[in-house]
Order: sequence, then C-alpha cells, then structure tokens
Amino acid sequence: MEINVIKIGGNVIDHPEKAKAFLQAFAEFPGHKVLIHGGGVLASRIGQSMGIVPNMVDGRRITDKETLDIVTMVYAGLINKNLVAQLHSFGQPAIGLTGADGNLIRSTKRPVGKIDYGYVGDVAAVNTGLLEALLAQKISPAICAITHDGKGQLLNTNADTIASAVAKSLAQKSHQVNLYFCFDRAGVLMDEKKEDSLVPLINEDIYNELKKEKVIHSGMIPKLENAFNALNAGVYNVWLGLPENLILASKGINAGTTIRSQRYDLY
Amino acid sequence: MEINVIKIGGNVIDHPEKAKAFLQAFAEFPGHKVLIHGGGVLASRIGQSMGIVPNMVDGRRITDKETLDIVTMVYAGLINKNLVAQLHSFGQPAIGLTGADGNLIRSTKRPVGKIDYGYVGDVAAVNTGLLEALLAQKISPAICAITHDGKGQLLNTNADTIASAVAKSLAQKSHQVNLYFCFDRAGVLMDEKKEDSLVPLINEDIYNELKKEKVIHSGMIPKLENAFNALNAGVYNVWLGLPENLILASKGINAGTTIRSQRYDLY
Repeated sequence: MEINVIKIGGNVIDHPEKAKAFLQAFAEFPGHKVLIHGGGVLASRIGQSMGIVPNMVDGRRITDKETLDIVTMVYAGLINKNLVAQLHSFGQPAIGLTGADGNLIRSTKRPVGKIDYGYVGDVAAVNTGLLEALLAQKISPAICAITHDGKGQLLNTNADTIASAVAKSLAQKSHQVNLYFCFDRAGVLMDEKKEDSLVPLINEDIYNELKKEKVIHSGMIPKLENAFNALNAGVYNVWLGLPENLILASKGINAGTTIRSQRYDLY
Repeated sequence: MEINVIKIGGNVIDHPEKAKAFLQAFAEFPGHKVLIHGGGVLASRIGQSMGIVPNMVDGRRITDKETLDIVTMVYAGLINKNLVAQLHSFGQPAIGLTGADGNLIRSTKRPVGKIDYGYVGDVAAVNTGLLEALLAQKISPAICAITHDGKGQLLNTNADTIASAVAKSLAQKSHQVNLYFCFDRAGVLMDEKKEDSLVPLINEDIYNELKKEKVIHSGMIPKLENAFNALNAGVYNVWLGLPENLILASKGINAGTTIRSQRYDLY
C-alpha cells in the first residue's frame, strides 16, 4: 500500500491553534497515514513546574529517571491522548501508541560513551505488522517518541529518528512510503530570515554543498541526515515544510523542500 | 469467547513490587484478558509536586482543567506505558488504551448538579469490536480511566465503572465475561481488621443485609453496586480480592469474595 508517515514538530504541537490546524490537515490528508510526534517544549515546561531543569547536550535531552517519567507522561499521556481525541473529532480514527504498545518499537539503551544520555534508546526493530493491521482498518497510528527495550524498561527516542525508522521499516515491506516532516519552517532556506528563500528540491550533492557553506547547520543537519538515510533505505519521497502546506504537498504542489535520493535526477 | 476483565486498584499499582507481582499473575492468567487501571494515588502525588491540591468529594475527584491534564499524564502516560512495557517483559503482549484510542469508550460530560465534577465522563458506548480484534490476536488491551466525548474532549472516568462497562458490553456481545477487582483487601470482610473474616460468597440479599448492619460501607458500596450492575447485565462472574489470589481464583479456588446475581442459588 501507499503509506504517508507524517511527523509533527514540538513547536507546532505546543500552540493549540497550530496543532488544531495541523490535525485538521492530517485528517483530510488522503490515503493511509501514520502520525509521529514528540513534545520536548511542553515536557521541559512541565518538568520545570515540578522543579526539574532540562539538561540538553547538543540539542539532545539527557534522560535521567525523573526526566524519563516526565517525557513518558507528557508525550504518551498529555500530548498523545489529546491529539487522538481531536483526530476523532475531525473524523479520523486513530490509536495512540508508544514503542511498548504491541511491541511496536523495540530499542536498545544507548551505550555510555563520551556522554551518558541516560534512558535513551536507539531503534532496534519496528513491528510493521501492527501498523499494517491498523492502516488496513483505516485507523491512523499516532506514535510518540517513547520506545521500550523488551525487558520492561521504557526509553526516550528522538521523534525524527522514529519517523525515519518507521518509514524505512514499512518501505522494506514493499510499501510505497512518503515521509513528511512538518515543523515551524517553510523548508530548507538559503537565508533563515527569509521564508521566500526556500530550496524546493535538494539531493545529497546540494546538501553537502550547502552544509559546507553553513547554509544548513545545527538542528537541520540531523533532520536531513535522517531524510537521506530514509531515502537510501527505500523510502520513496521525503518532504520538509510548514503544516499548513501539507495538503498542497499531498497534491504534488511543492510548497516546501522535497528531498531526493542521489539515485534520481533532480529535475 | 471467554474473556476475563481484570481491574487493578491504585494502591497496588503504587507499590512497584506489588505491581510487578500482579503483572506476573496477569501474564500467567489463562485465556483472553483485559486489564483496567486508574492511578489516583500517584496522580495526587504528582499533582501536589506541581502545586495542585487534589479536591475530593465523597471519594470522587473534582476534575478541573489542570487536574484533567495531570490524570491524563499519569494514567495514560506514566502508569499505562510502564504496565505495558512490563507485561511484554513477562511475555504478555499488550496495547495500552484510553477511551479516545480507536474510539474505545465514548462518554458524556457529567451534567452539573449539586456538585460540579468538572471534566468527568459517564460511559456512553464501548467499541467492543476493537477489544475483540486485539483479544483474537492474543493481545491484552490495558485500559486506563480516561475517556473522550467524541468531540475532542478527554474526560476522567472512574476505573471501577470502566471495568464494569467494558465487562457488560462484552457480555452483551454473547461472550462469557468474568470480572475481577484486585485491590488491597482480601475481599468483603465481616470485620475490616481481620483478613480471616472473609465473606466468600455474596448475593444482593446478603449485600443489603450487610449494608444495613454497616459491615459494608463507604468505598465498598460503589464497588459492589458496580458488581451487581454487571451481573444483572449478563456478566457471568464477579470476584473481589487480593492480586496474589488472582491465579487461585482463575482455578476456581475462591480465595476472595465471589459475587453472584440473585438469579443463582448461593451454594
């Protein structure tokens, strides 16, 4: 089947009006679709209300026991269940899942290297059968950024990485998979301050060139690395952009950045 | 099919060792099974760490917007996902659900009467098809005490009531349903201070008599009302007792209180 894996960024979820507009677009989006989300902004705020200060290294959250409890509460509870309830109100059946539910995503705790990330998991296996069974019934899985090790331990896993891993695993089962990253940017921009400096199409050569020129930097690097990684593992199409342009993207109108594998010619 | 609906009390969940022992028993329990839980003790503690004092009237939580967020985080996130991860580690596949997931339990916000309970929902409909589909695949649904109104609003619903509603809805689909309430008591006791004063079998006549004599009072009343309500709606058997006696109960050894409808003779 053709499956659309749509990841929504934390900055969008954190604004009720933006989140609502995104969920309406998700409900209208044609075909089979999977929703992926995290929610770091809200997790940090709720943690702080409990006196727990977030500890970030290079944009990655160090997840001690208390932080794991907070992200589990916020991602799998507060955010996931409100998203699911709203999707139903827009006519889109959905089931909210962590990696623990139905053993959907098993991960391994990241080994301690220079940095001890704590309870952070790297994806080991995706139970694509569960996703296929839900999608066949027109139910959208809504997956949050919590996984498990199969031995009773929950682990915190980056939501972009989950989106990429889910897309790749489905592609490996011969589905045609499109991966959409919705966030608070129009896509890859030549000038971050100008939304009209959008790069509509990018491949690895252009990416490497733009990275060298520091046009692409910091948080955009892992996002694009995830994208190329997915494309090279058989994902059909990857798109980056604003949630309000998601429906246009579904119609082939590129109001964002489309990412192409080196295997294809750009134009 | 024969389906066992097993509700675990908040005082058990709140003790990691007791919770683990219960989950092992649940995993070993033969046949199809559904887990139901709340988690009021932990929700109150986490709310307090955020400066929110629980507001209880007659043992029922008044659920304002902030309290709804907390119970959603704690029941659907922290507790539910840890239970599900542990069940997998004991070899029991499970998927954690709120009433919003797959439109499992739709409820209506309780009308404001003498008391305004806030965001509290009374069960309107149970999606038994979803439960049947999961059980047919040997996956246990793990349902927490959060429902939704179908219009995007989550609602807080008593976990005993959910257990009773789920059991009744399945019984009405011609399944043989057994309902187990596991809590921190051996069952109905003639003398609360003596665990050996257990009443092994009870029907509505005995219940009314014991209520008149104030042997049965406070929290035990709604629990037994839920039980009789379930029996009168076609549930086959209802049991109350300690989680460590659950496996005995599955073997027909009554180390707890079995509740019988008036339709059956007691002995």
